[in-house]
Order: sequence, then structure tokens, then C-alpha cells
Amino acid sequence: MARRNEHSKPELRALAIGTVRTLVAEQGLEKLSVREVARRLGYAPAMLYHLFDNLDDLILHVNADTLDTLLDRMDAAAAMENPRAALTAMAHHYLELSRAQTPLWQLVFEHRMNQGAPVPAWYQRRTRSLFLMVEQQLERLAPWATERERLLGARTLWGSLHGICVLYLGDKLDVAGDVDPREMVDSLLRHYLADWSATTDHRPRGDRKGARS
Amino acid sequence: MARRNEHSKPELRALAIGTVRTLVAEQGLEKLSVREVARRLGYAPAMLYHLFDNLDDLILHVNADTLDTLLDRMDAAAAMENPRAALTAMAHHYLELSRAQTPLWQLVFEHRMNQGAPVPAWYQRRTRSLFLMVEQQLERLAPWATERERLLGARTLWGSLHGICVLYLGDKLDVAGDVDPREMVDSLLRHYLADWSATTDHRPRGDRKGARS
Repeated sequence: MARRNEHSKPELRALAIGTVRTLVAEQGLEKLSVREVARRLGYAPAMLYHLFDNLDDLILHVNADTLDTLLDRMDAAAAMENPRAALTAMAHHYLELSRAQTPLWQLVFEHRMNQGAPVPAWYQRRTRSLFLMVEQQLERLAPWATERERLLGARTLWGSLHGICVLYLGDKLDVAGDVDPREMVDSLLRHYLADWSATTDHRPRGDRKGARS
Repeated sequence: MARRNEHSKPELRALAIGTVRTLVAEQGLEKLSVREVARRLGYAPAMLYHLFDNLDDLILHVNADTLDTLLDRMDAAAAMENPRAALTAMAHHYLELSRAQTPLWQLVFEHRMNQGAPVPAWYQRRTRSLFLMVEQQLERLAPWATERERLLGARTLWGSLHGICVLYLGDKLDVAGDVDPREMVDSLLRHYLADWSATTDHRPRGDRKGARS
């Protein structure tokens, strides 16, 4: 495996993150340990503490990698002409990522900071970017909506979409009879967005014509 | 504790279910074992296998109890005059139950049948009743909707609501900024139902007036 003097510190950090990703994808979350990550890297466990503040810091970097994958895909969808189509494409990327990289996706949501330490600002900026991307599409869809309406809309859509993914991945949609999660996602986006964009319109009726995307 | 010859078999089953509920509420899911349940009941573990087919059977009975609590509350909401208000009240009962009885509520979703055994018909009837209750309100709201539209609507609402609860209970709504899960539930129900009831209306326009609840 890698030798310390062959790699710069940033390279070693990237190698460590990649190793955790492989381990989580192979074995799930439960068996993840600093010892195992170090063994795979070919270093002593102490080396990891030279690269990362602690296990939380390492896991947050792994999760940031997962969020970056999602951000990249959402970014590509953001260029679509129709904001409703863009939001629907983003939602399908979320569902697809949760399906294709289930353990890594679960790590984003199941990780808890040790002893209730605060989530660092650099990571919070990552999650904030994801919401901003949704809010920007909501603004394109309904330029008349208030910031507060966009904020609530983005969070409601996220929570709702997340639930469909969670039940799908947990094989719990079966109890509800034969239903395709993609069909649920389409139904959610279609009906929620149509009424959300219409009812956030506070302009006088005469001014509305043609303003809707 | 209880003595075998003091209780009938149905009474002992009810005692065992109650004991599991107490244990799960106190200690969460991880520490649940037949041995501990038996110890609390004051019986040998073998006794539990006289009352239930296996651990799956016992847990399904505990989960059925949790679902019955939800069914009872939803049943009370079903009598409301306005189907939209009834569905919103049902959703708030779901959120409230997930908050007040978190470990028992999680047991419903985290339990997996051992070795992929099928979920027995009596339990499937329970979950089917929950969906039926939602579908009946959707039928009151939009009598013109097809059965398939009601089925998809009920499951989309459930999945969406479930996601808001999961993120709330996992303290994950914080990353999204200050947002109240009840406000998200209201937003979901309001916008989804308004457009769902309008766009499932396939009757000629002239026939629609006054038919909407």
C-alpha cells in the first residue's frame, strides 16, 4: 500500500477518504474503525490522527465527498430551461444516489458528532449549497415567493423526498402494495410545486399573466 | 411477577407484549432479547415460545399495538367534516406518535422478518387498514379520482410525511436551518392535496362546479 514519504499530506487525506468509502461500501457502517482504515492504508492508526482531527473529521470528509457527488449532478440539472423539470431531475438524482451508494448515503444521515460537538462551518456550507440550489430553482419557478416561502418549500420537498428514499431502501414500500418510488417522487414534485408556485403568488391577479415559468 | 397458573394464555400474551413495549421504550431496540423479556415476566425463556411462534411473531404483535394506537387516533380524525382537515390531522397524529413513542415507532420500521420470512396476513391487514383510511379521505376529497390515483396519492403522502418525521427525530432538520416539522407537514398536505384533487378531476369542465369538497 501507500508509503508515507511517497505522498503529500493532501494526497494521503484523499487516500484515507477513498479507503473509508471503499470500506463503507463493502461492509456497511458498523464495522468502520480507525484501525481498519489504517490497516488498509498500510499505516499505523496514529497516522490518521496526523491527517484528521479525529474520527468525526474523517467521516465528515467522506460525507462531504458524497454530498459533492450529489451537488455535481444537481448542478448539471440546474441548467435545464424549465425549473420544474430541473427540480424533478434533482430529486431523481437524490433517489438514484441513495439507491446506488446506499451505505455511503446512510453515513451522511446516521453520523452523529461525538459528544455533541458542533458541525464545523466548512461542512455546513456544503449542506447550505444543496438547499441554495433548490431555492434558486424555486425562485425561477415563482419569483414572487418570499425567501421564507422558498426556505420552507425547499425543506418540505427535501424531507418528503428523503422519506420515499428511506422507505424504498428499507424495503418498506412493499407493505404499501406495488408502487414505484420514482412514480412517488414524480407525484410529489408535480402536485406540490404546482400549488406552491400558484399560492405563493401574492401579486394582484391582473399582474400575473405570463409571469409564470 | 406474574405466575403462569394465575393467567390465561391471552393474558400472558398481553403481559409479554406490554413488557416488550416497556423494555423498548426504556432501552431502545438494540438490547431487546427473549431472555430479558422472560426475566422481566418472571418466566423461563421457553415460556415465550409457548405464547409466540418466535421472536418475529412477538415483535409483530408489539408493532401491531403501535399501529393500533395510530389507527385509533386516525379513526377519530376520520369523522371530521372536511377531508383535507382530516388528512392533515392524521398526518399530525403520525408526527406526534413518532415523537412521543420514538423507539416503538422505530421498531415498526426497523424490524426485519428473520431469514426473509413473509409478513403474515393478519399483520398485512393492519397496515392495509391504515392506507385504506387515507384513501377513503382522498375519495371524499376527490370522488372523481381513480383507485390507482388514490393509491399513489396515499403512498406518496405517507412516504413524504415519514421523511419529515425521520429527519426530525434524527436531529437532521437543524442542518436545514430553523424549521418546524409541523410547518413542513402542513405545507406538504396543503400544496400536495390542492393540486392532487384538482388535477385528478377528469370530468368535463362544465360538470365540475360545486362537486369539490
